[in-house]
Amino acid sequence: MLSWVDGQPAELLSVKDRGLAYGDGLFETIAVKAGQPTLLERHLARLAEGCARLRMPVELPVVRAQVLAFSQQLGEGVVKLILTRGDGQRGYAVPQPAKPRLILQASAKPAYPAAHAEHGVRLFPCVTRLAEQPVLAGLKHLNRLEQVLARSEWHDAEHAEGLMLDTSGRVIEGVYSNLLLVSAGVLMTADLSRCGVAGVMRAELLAQADAQGIECQVRDISYAELLAADEVMLCNSVYGIWPVRALLAHGWPVGPLTRKLQAITRDLLDC
Amino acid sequence: MLSWVDGQPAELLSVKDRGLAYGDGLFETIAVKAGQPTLLERHLARLAEGCARLRMPVELPVVRAQVLAFSQQLGEGVVKLILTRGDGQRGYAVPQPAKPRLILQASAKPAYPAAHAEHGVRLFPCVTRLAEQPVLAGLKHLNRLEQVLARSEWHDAEHAEGLMLDTSGRVIEGVYSNLLLVSAGVLMTADLSRCGVAGVMRAELLAQADAQGIECQVRDISYAELLAADEVMLCNSVYGIWPVRALLAHGWPVGPLTRKLQAITRDLLDC
Repeated sequence: MLSWVDGQPAELLSVKDRGLAYGDGLFETIAVKAGQPTLLERHLARLAEGCARLRMPVELPVVRAQVLAFSQQLGEGVVKLILTRGDGQRGYAVPQPAKPRLILQASAKPAYPAAHAEHGVRLFPCVTRLAEQPVLAGLKHLNRLEQVLARSEWHDAEHAEGLMLDTSGRVIEGVYSNLLLVSAGVLMTADLSRCGVAGVMRAELLAQADAQGIECQVRDISYAELLAADEVMLCNSVYGIWPVRALLAHGWPVGPLTRKLQAITRDLLDC
Repeated sequence: MLSWVDGQPAELLSVKDRGLAYGDGLFETIAVKAGQPTLLERHLARLAEGCARLRMPVELPVVRAQVLAFSQQLGEGVVKLILTRGDGQRGYAVPQPAKPRLILQASAKPAYPAAHAEHGVRLFPCVTRLAEQPVLAGLKHLNRLEQVLARSEWHDAEHAEGLMLDTSGRVIEGVYSNLLLVSAGVLMTADLSRCGVAGVMRAELLAQADAQGIECQVRDISYAELLAADEVMLCNSVYGIWPVRALLAHGWPVGPLTRKLQAITRDLLDC
């Protein structure tokens, strides 16, 4: 598959890269349709925020131009963007100046069963919890062992995603998705100031829901509130929205707000 | 500098490596003198424990043979060993079977001022805290953004290391060292079951102290206990032991147990 390193076709990178050594970098997963990256400005905005918080320089116009050119070549599929702090010597101290490295990798659009979006998915209750680390919370950084461990907890096709709580037991997100609830007509999603990844599709849906006059709340969510919700759904930048129909013995119907928001993501992603 | 990937001289690796994508792997930093890796069996034991906890296959005899051959070529310096889960496709799910990748990188022995070991160092009080994540605690894994952020908090040469607390305020370790205290003749170091890296030199020193009849305690340590300690020291596999002489306005003398343990590390590391 298509792969670029710093704008050049390449499938290899230096063993000295700090992305490898320390997970010192960020990533974005961008759906591409008809040669165009979806929600590109939101992806770039999150990347810029991550760079600011990790104090990593980034030239957004260069990143934008490369993603656009790469997407044009790809046509249809998914672009994974990785921005690392570049090469380093041994030791945690950041090289001054750091010379970040931009990696773009293409993959085919994942072939999820159509039933996921139509009838909803079953969530696996992950035992792996998300640690509370405010300085990294919200970022899509390269330190993802919690997700690797959580995703390795189930192997059956019956569960499409896993539910992750934080170490205090709050409901946070899926392993590779954000979670949205509907309760008495209010759209709710977890506050991600202690842990979790602030998804681009989550941000887009909150903005569009708000613009349509739907009340949105970003706040702590308990397990009891999840169970008591009228509708539960997952979202991410690649598949859009999947209704959640079951978690262990608990079930939820696929509700009207879920369908309304799904129409938005279908327009965006053409899926 | 000398660099091997899977036993062959190489300075590049696949952009698909899961070490880069997710920090999905482990590392070891091994001092080499006269062509021999120091404390090799302890490093391999920690690596094996990490692999078991991350459910990553490892062939220890192959790793041992490569580290020995690499150290022989290096002669003097430091070997950084990185074991990743190897290449993956997009997504957190672990490839079945995973084919781990072993990377060895050489560097010169760092030229720390002799005064660090002789007269002790000043600790920088890091604001970055260690998140509490029992499933990863103790492991020397590749998710090290906390250390990168902590190490970026100071730039002056006056501070040789930084003190890291956990998010609950317990005293845990240095950014690249473990911390040991002496209080009323008892050698103490932090319990690392919630966070922190269980250093190989820490394990060696605890074993040797115990063998010499010195009482050792591995337990939670408060900031007040740190300040009240009779002696404070740092240790790691490369520099051995540095006494800690100061943290902010607080000072400690370089005490007799510190000197006694330093003699052990000097024998081991020839420094």
